[in-house]
Amino acid sequence: MEKSDSLVVFDKDTVNHALGSYFDIRLEELAAVDPFVWELGTFLRDFTLCGGKRMRPIFAWTAFSSVNSDEDPAAVIQAVSSLELIQACALIHDDIIDASDSRRNAPTVHKRVEAYHADKKWAGSSSRFGENIAILLGDLALSWSDDMFHSSGISTQAYRAASLAWQAMRTEVINGQILDIANECRQYEDIDSALKVMRYKTAAYTIERPLHLGAAIAGASEEIITALREYGRCIGMAFQIRDDLLGVFGDPSITGKPAGDDLREGKRTLLLAYALSELDSSHPDKAHILRTQIGSQEAHIAELTDIISGTSAVEKCEDMIHSLHDQGVGALDSLNIHEQSRATLIALAHKATQRSF
Amino acid sequence: MEKSDSLVVFDKDTVNHALGSYFDIRLEELAAVDPFVWELGTFLRDFTLCGGKRMRPIFAWTAFSSVNSDEDPAAVIQAVSSLELIQACALIHDDIIDASDSRRNAPTVHKRVEAYHADKKWAGSSSRFGENIAILLGDLALSWSDDMFHSSGISTQAYRAASLAWQAMRTEVINGQILDIANECRQYEDIDSALKVMRYKTAAYTIERPLHLGAAIAGASEEIITALREYGRCIGMAFQIRDDLLGVFGDPSITGKPAGDDLREGKRTLLLAYALSELDSSHPDKAHILRTQIGSQEAHIAELTDIISGTSAVEKCEDMIHSLHDQGVGALDSLNIHEQSRATLIALAHKATQRSF
Repeated sequence: MEKSDSLVVFDKDTVNHALGSYFDIRLEELAAVDPFVWELGTFLRDFTLCGGKRMRPIFAWTAFSSVNSDEDPAAVIQAVSSLELIQACALIHDDIIDASDSRRNAPTVHKRVEAYHADKKWAGSSSRFGENIAILLGDLALSWSDDMFHSSGISTQAYRAASLAWQAMRTEVINGQILDIANECRQYEDIDSALKVMRYKTAAYTIERPLHLGAAIAGASEEIITALREYGRCIGMAFQIRDDLLGVFGDPSITGKPAGDDLREGKRTLLLAYALSELDSSHPDKAHILRTQIGSQEAHIAELTDIISGTSAVEKCEDMIHSLHDQGVGALDSLNIHEQSRATLIALAHKATQRSF
Repeated sequence: MEKSDSLVVFDKDTVNHALGSYFDIRLEELAAVDPFVWELGTFLRDFTLCGGKRMRPIFAWTAFSSVNSDEDPAAVIQAVSSLELIQACALIHDDIIDASDSRRNAPTVHKRVEAYHADKKWAGSSSRFGENIAILLGDLALSWSDDMFHSSGISTQAYRAASLAWQAMRTEVINGQILDIANECRQYEDIDSALKVMRYKTAAYTIERPLHLGAAIAGASEEIITALREYGRCIGMAFQIRDDLLGVFGDPSITGKPAGDDLREGKRTLLLAYALSELDSSHPDKAHILRTQIGSQEAHIAELTDIISGTSAVEKCEDMIHSLHDQGVGALDSLNIHEQSRATLIALAHKATQRSF
């Protein structure tokens, strides 16, 4: 039995539908325990279903579809959609860690639970309650991602082939987050440190490993997996550099967060690394201003933005995006995959690095 | 091929050895990423390997051994030992939630990481750093528990049979924790609420589901699984009631935490529910003192302990432990399992409810 390329249309709705059905099942279990845990479970469902670019399932599905496979498409849809539950945990815990109040123009999960507690006028600190419940809802999402993946119904052979990618992606994203937090505390501002965080926190987790996972499920050859991973690493890095540029210069109506938020948060980005390394020799006074204000709620965002714009950091980042994009797409050259999949991957590379995603 | 009862000696060392070997593999992955994430990974390893009663793997293994099975014992050892990584996550996150400074007479993980940050004199708040990294180390433990279980090498049939227990136990313990936190905030003090938290947070997670998991891996009959779960529910509840008694009246040198700690934390235990319900009619003044002081760092522990001792709450708890113990052990009567396993389960029931565990 050969699966035709056009058998299944896979888009955000496909993922949302799979997640919605899965939540229906699991929320019933919660309702059987207690109406209150069910209600909190709906916070997790609403957060997971509302918004999100669904990049990970889309990349995984694209890799899966790039070669012929006997796997049941419905099972693969469930398997790759489970990646969004890992992402739900990552975002919920990340928002606690960063003490972020909003995401996707709406309150973060811990803030919603905090408001729920305040509204009920329960005893104790509403903010502690919000954070504590959100830690547990993140744990629930992480457990459910695994359950959803392992109950998807893909073949035993597919599980075996995909297990390396599945295991690596969760460990790598956590490693990336640990390094990211530590680099802020250690005030690491060199280019290599910024690149390493990017590689694990974004590139591996968002593109490389989802592609690896999808291709492995389909039983793709080592050659194809290696090339797709190379594409994923490059496009993933370029995607993050674009994100960093948007975090400083982006339009809040598009990014969904206030302008200059990355500067206020003190994110150690490649953009910042380039700017500081240049300013240290050209304008030590400006390097000093940038260094002392970054990461502070009182930072003069317009001034910092001007300082960065005055360097060649933006240009260097754009050059790097450009060359990573070309290197990534180049890895697909003469690769033995379906033409339609190659075209999709090229379009996704453009979308991810120009960021209309 | 029939597995003899005595083929494998399974005890705490068996679990520690399996966990140690697994950490060796995963820490190598961390070392390949960055020496710093490796170092933090050793915090997780040291916490997981140091101390712990290993109740969950021991119950799971006992259930597995209670019937004949073709599964490879080495694979089953890895599968059931993975439960300790779920427990590592639960404890690490619980200690953040409860803001606990110590566990097993040593600093909690977030406190150790906090001290590490302070020692390095890094920028930012040491306590925030400690909590944030500990959230991520808990996530790592939860991911690894799943990886360890799913790479254990038990048969596809065993995975299929065990998946219900595996899925349920993580969801149930999180539900129990959510209810526990909420009941404190809602100041629920009724007996049914206390029983429900106990059922999910302890009984299901610590005994019932591990038994279910082990028996399912062995391919035990529905009849055996049902009876073992009944035993597990009863002994698990009795174990928690004993724990609650120790939390108020226990010897700190045995419990590893200060006397009366549960009163200071405001835990909504069955003991408290019984005491309050009796005092409301017999001594409303004492009920008032108990209610207002519980959950406060300034609570007069000796006074509260006296108030509780003056009621029949302790006796009611002891009666309940006794009858749950008998009901649990009774579920094993004339059950078609190996005699040696029945004897082990009876001994474990005694140990868990008298708490020399």
